[in-house]
Amino acid sequence: MERIYIKDLKNHAGEDVLIKGSVDTLRDQNKIVFLIARDISGIIQTVVLKDCPDFEIAKEITEESIVELTGLVKEEAQAPSGFEIEVKTIKVLSVAAPELPIPVNTKKGGEETNINSRLDYRFIDLRKPEKTKIFKTWTSLERGMRSYFEDNNFLQIYTPSFMNTSSESGAEVFEVNYFDKKAYLAQSPQFYKQMAISSGLEKVFIVGPVFRAEESFTTRHMTEFTGWDFEMGYINDHNDLMKTEEEMLQRGFEQIKKDNPEIEIEIPQTPFPKISIKEAKEKLSEAGVKSEKEHDLSPEEERTICEIVKKETGNEFVFITDYHISIRPFYHMRNEENPELTKSADLLYRGIEITTLAQREHRPEILEKQAEEKKMDLKSLEKYFEFFKYGCPPHGGAGIGPSRIIMKLLGYENVKEVTFLPRDVNRLEP
Amino acid sequence: MERIYIKDLKNHAGEDVLIKGSVDTLRDQNKIVFLIARDISGIIQTVVLKDCPDFEIAKEITEESIVELTGLVKEEAQAPSGFEIEVKTIKVLSVAAPELPIPVNTKKGGEETNINSRLDYRFIDLRKPEKTKIFKTWTSLERGMRSYFEDNNFLQIYTPSFMNTSSESGAEVFEVNYFDKKAYLAQSPQFYKQMAISSGLEKVFIVGPVFRAEESFTTRHMTEFTGWDFEMGYINDHNDLMKTEEEMLQRGFEQIKKDNPEIEIEIPQTPFPKISIKEAKEKLSEAGVKSEKEHDLSPEEERTICEIVKKETGNEFVFITDYHISIRPFYHMRNEENPELTKSADLLYRGIEITTLAQREHRPEILEKQAEEKKMDLKSLEKYFEFFKYGCPPHGGAGIGPSRIIMKLLGYENVKEVTFLPRDVNRLEP
Repeated sequence: MERIYIKDLKNHAGEDVLIKGSVDTLRDQNKIVFLIARDISGIIQTVVLKDCPDFEIAKEITEESIVELTGLVKEEAQAPSGFEIEVKTIKVLSVAAPELPIPVNTKKGGEETNINSRLDYRFIDLRKPEKTKIFKTWTSLERGMRSYFEDNNFLQIYTPSFMNTSSESGAEVFEVNYFDKKAYLAQSPQFYKQMAISSGLEKVFIVGPVFRAEESFTTRHMTEFTGWDFEMGYINDHNDLMKTEEEMLQRGFEQIKKDNPEIEIEIPQTPFPKISIKEAKEKLSEAGVKSEKEHDLSPEEERTICEIVKKETGNEFVFITDYHISIRPFYHMRNEENPELTKSADLLYRGIEITTLAQREHRPEILEKQAEEKKMDLKSLEKYFEFFKYGCPPHGGAGIGPSRIIMKLLGYENVKEVTFLPRDVNRLEP
Repeated sequence: MERIYIKDLKNHAGEDVLIKGSVDTLRDQNKIVFLIARDISGIIQTVVLKDCPDFEIAKEITEESIVELTGLVKEEAQAPSGFEIEVKTIKVLSVAAPELPIPVNTKKGGEETNINSRLDYRFIDLRKPEKTKIFKTWTSLERGMRSYFEDNNFLQIYTPSFMNTSSESGAEVFEVNYFDKKAYLAQSPQFYKQMAISSGLEKVFIVGPVFRAEESFTTRHMTEFTGWDFEMGYINDHNDLMKTEEEMLQRGFEQIKKDNPEIEIEIPQTPFPKISIKEAKEKLSEAGVKSEKEHDLSPEEERTICEIVKKETGNEFVFITDYHISIRPFYHMRNEENPELTKSADLLYRGIEITTLAQREHRPEILEKQAEEKKMDLKSLEKYFEFFKYGCPPHGGAGIGPSRIIMKLLGYENVKEVTFLPRDVNRLEP
């Protein structure tokens, strides 16, 4: 008999079926056992009557054990889904220990367990049906993102984690014992994707881990997380990058909706609103939010500007543009008309920054001058400067934090909640 | 004017066009300059005549500089593609230094440059048009693989690189200075993907880097490479895994063909041939190949068995099944009828192993017994054993090395040739 997923049982009323899943809840009423079964698609009430040959198994089984059940699908007004299964056979595939370290079922207070205990037993924490949505959303968002890139002739590349120098800043980088020398873990694929442009690959995207040795204990930082990056050659300026990103994200959101009708999601309208940081600061000042840093937004300012823009435009995304050179890295291209400003932008979504994008400076003499101004160690950048000396198209790109998008989309308050197995200063397991 | 890709110029004969790309080759014939232009899609001959206002630019430009050219597309029997562009304007976007550290054009002996020099200047090495195929093939193979997984309800997960213990073996693992303690880089997502099954995610796939601190100097080893993994719950046995993998690979090959008509590729027939290692050894013995290890295949045996199977069946893939427990890890499930054998297989393609797959032992008492037999450190596996104590479906999965597939498919002899920026014992840059 072929396995039926629980969500599809409604199409099998009056039929004998086979289901496979976990024993979510047991209610032993002496002559009848109610066994609530759970698979990745849903939950169903089953009843095991005394004349069932496997009645004794139902009596002895533990919650969270894995079973195969066969039985008859019946309409039953009192069952939560309007259906139940009258069980004919039970086969136990895996026996769960009677005491679980953390509860599975939200009815039993699962979410009240503190986050650290839940993460310690992440493989039990994730059994809660609403948590499956996290991975369905990730999978669909990436599927949509990729379909956009594929339709637009981007090539995927994998960039290495191991570097021989500590990429951008030197600080906050993990050191690896690499045979008889030291290696460092890439904080971003920034330089590599620029190299791809110099290689003539024209448009590339990258999906992979990035590593930050920051002693941060916030709800939006981890020491290792998944980064999405793209880089495009022959752009006119950073407006081309904003267009690519908004269209890519719109496609991702459409894919989530298409694949998961059960997830509530609003498709963002494109183009996304764009305001300069100067305008943003003015709006924030009008709203009575005090500016902490002249050229940058604090977390509170990010939240408030998103609320303001949402009220004004209905859009939950907003690009903040025209950042001052003082808070941008040396390789951001400067605005010809106002060389204090960079051709860069941040994208905010529901109150949090999810992207930094910029056109890069591809002219080696200017790039070196800008690095010098920023007091960078020019010697350590020699190899980087080389990418631009043998012909390199004008280009730019973006780095995107998908876990922040998923967190905000699903209403979680910590990126760790939407990460399969998060890593932070104190957490290296499970 | 909108940019036209070089491969599409044939549809624009008689029109004025704009192209963007590199100056591949210059031939200055005094009153006329032949400028061969290259973009990611192809190569075209352009001619700059003396009366062109930008004639002097053409005279002074260097090879590998980046340009925008406008001009008229003309049929020209003597041009290699049957077309050429009569140039009207030239705009230089990036000036290349006159001397390149390695040659770009194969006509000038590019591939004769030794691999280390080419890898040192990988961003120039990859400009050779045939190298673009590497990334087109990767992108399409992954696209096809993903479409198969998505159609079959697999969820994508990202697993961490950082671990607090040295996963499977303890040897050959990179150590990271992690704040005031040590972390280790995952050699495979093996344990994590099993955890996903215990989490109730049922079917998952993973794409990401894996790290091996092996002092190997072969043409098929790197210290960091991209691994593809999948894991499936509720399988009957390893035959389900072989079916999934062969269908996934077939889909990937179909996608390569569909996206890249210029790449010669044969779509493999499914099901792939399957022979036990015992049968393989018999066939090899008949063919006069000496067996080095009783239960495993040497590189030479892998090559020869592929040739034999190809001759017999026409298929370039072959599953070798029924490996002996002595050469398989403790967590491979054993065959009930012959407990000396595991429910595992390797997949070979064109003479090289590209996959190991197996059903895993999910019954904690048997798993612990098998670990004990293999003299594993049970203490360090305690957390792993926990995944199976609270209900875990029967499951299994595969780890796939896509760089080996691409290498063999495109006829390269070293995995480094098909890796964007390879890393090995001696190489940490560029």
